[in-house]
Amino acid sequence: MKKGLITFSSPPVLTAGMSVVGKREGEGPLGGYFDLICHDEKFGEKTFEKGEANMFSIAVSGALSKAGLQPEDVDVLIAGDLLNQLVSSSYVARDLPMSYLGVYSACSTMTESLIVGGTLISSGYADRTVCATGSHFATAERQYRYPLEYGCQRPPYSQWTVTAAGCSILAKKGNGPSITHAAIGHVVDMGVSDLNNMGAGMAPAAADTMCAVFEGLGVDERDFDLILTGDLGRVGSEILRDLMRERNVELGSEYSDCGEMIFYDDQHCYSGGSGAGCSACVLNSYVLKKMACGELNRVLLLATGALMSPTTSCQGETIPAVSHGVILENI
Amino acid sequence: MKKGLITFSSPPVLTAGMSVVGKREGEGPLGGYFDLICHDEKFGEKTFEKGEANMFSIAVSGALSKAGLQPEDVDVLIAGDLLNQLVSSSYVARDLPMSYLGVYSACSTMTESLIVGGTLISSGYADRTVCATGSHFATAERQYRYPLEYGCQRPPYSQWTVTAAGCSILAKKGNGPSITHAAIGHVVDMGVSDLNNMGAGMAPAAADTMCAVFEGLGVDERDFDLILTGDLGRVGSEILRDLMRERNVELGSEYSDCGEMIFYDDQHCYSGGSGAGCSACVLNSYVLKKMACGELNRVLLLATGALMSPTTSCQGETIPAVSHGVILENI
Repeated sequence: MKKGLITFSSPPVLTAGMSVVGKREGEGPLGGYFDLICHDEKFGEKTFEKGEANMFSIAVSGALSKAGLQPEDVDVLIAGDLLNQLVSSSYVARDLPMSYLGVYSACSTMTESLIVGGTLISSGYADRTVCATGSHFATAERQYRYPLEYGCQRPPYSQWTVTAAGCSILAKKGNGPSITHAAIGHVVDMGVSDLNNMGAGMAPAAADTMCAVFEGLGVDERDFDLILTGDLGRVGSEILRDLMRERNVELGSEYSDCGEMIFYDDQHCYSGGSGAGCSACVLNSYVLKKMACGELNRVLLLATGALMSPTTSCQGETIPAVSHGVILENI
Repeated sequence: MKKGLITFSSPPVLTAGMSVVGKREGEGPLGGYFDLICHDEKFGEKTFEKGEANMFSIAVSGALSKAGLQPEDVDVLIAGDLLNQLVSSSYVARDLPMSYLGVYSACSTMTESLIVGGTLISSGYADRTVCATGSHFATAERQYRYPLEYGCQRPPYSQWTVTAAGCSILAKKGNGPSITHAAIGHVVDMGVSDLNNMGAGMAPAAADTMCAVFEGLGVDERDFDLILTGDLGRVGSEILRDLMRERNVELGSEYSDCGEMIFYDDQHCYSGGSGAGCSACVLNSYVLKKMACGELNRVLLLATGALMSPTTSCQGETIPAVSHGVILENI
């Protein structure tokens, strides 16, 4: 393996995707692309955490239904989320008759699950996998920062955890884009310690994996219709452009960021969206629909995750970050 | 894929393992098998969490050294731990020049990492992977239960989180046992909600995966020199024997449990050891050494994990559990 890169010998096919989002995400620029917009922040449950698990479950059952599959037809669920002990994923897995692998790379979990699922399929060990993740604004706020009732102020460069879940079905064959390559990221830490400045913390990891893809596969930014980072937000995206400029890569209009795309400026989400559900819902709505109609044919998705915990931050640690990437192609 | 089972076409080889444990574990029945016993609970650091990460790091560098490898020779680190956001793994990964996949299935993380690492190697995408996990009594107590200073009482069926880390190097070829098969577990929840009674919560998951292995591969308990569950402890192991008896399988002396093996009765660890490091350190010491000298030739390791979080327990949820298995063979 060179630079963490995998070139799938039998590229797994992303045969169906489902996106479920909250009210605020539904009111954003991508509102028309999402499959389901739920106006109840608790998704019919009594707590935000149970609501997050229910949202996650709706995404999985919706994706299965779109693919015309029963849960029994799937070999493995590969999933993770932002809650401690990945409990949304575990409780969803409990109700499904398939094997389960829990994966975690914070907001890069969607691409990690696609990489693990794609490897299981490409190697012939599994026929179909479900890859899913999600995040919820209210559960993330109270776990990582403060309960909402405190009404804490935020700096302008902070990001807004999206309430969203995304699920992709991978299969050996079928209609849909193929995952032709994957890039397993390295952990990069440039010393950012401000928990509100995730974009700055994660941009170097995105640059690292993007360079690995470009150098490892002998391609550049012009070879893609869309290069999409996970959730660097406005601040982090600008830092990424600067970091790539230092390496003589000028990212143009082919580059965008899920966190930047998901909210309008006047939605008061500061630097933009974040959360594991951010790249998951953008992939499983906007990207898949644009690829289905041929507007996009080759996409590099580089989700980005910040791997610290509230405990390590209190102990003075900086923020390690990782970016796992996949290349989706209409072939 | 049938019942979550993988039969590796090119079985990955476990070329080296390293175990690092705390003082109490070193004083137990397996003390003579461990590579390193550290009497400082903080492993030279200022906090228990940083100590846990340091212990983890020592396990990884020790395994690399035993295998005669430089960190640069390895493609991917596949690791996880019990701390929120898998921070021990992430901070270890930050200091290593290899790609990183975070995995989590609580105390079944060691076998999950071997399954993911084994798949990457067997499929030809990676040449060498490092699979590792660990746990620490003091960090787990304060995260999952109460700070040690509270001096909380425990019921006699509770388990003691071991302070230990284990690391395995997987490669395409080399000396050492091969991982011939893997079993990705289903999440099983029989309604246990007592956070002190993990053994009862996890035993049904171990039974489920053991039956999948027996039925899927057409083998039974007599085909193994050792069947080792992760960390059910004394109480959970007895429940597993009962559950298997109901399915007409009488587990005899070939069956043991890492949690039961690791402490003497008079060490006051109640039902026995638990924690992700438990099966990790037993595999990478006792099992590997017994296999190296030919005393054991075919081992089924079924680590077991309880997937709840303190939050879900407070919200009235029961404990979902999973057991991922690997078969190690001298071939």
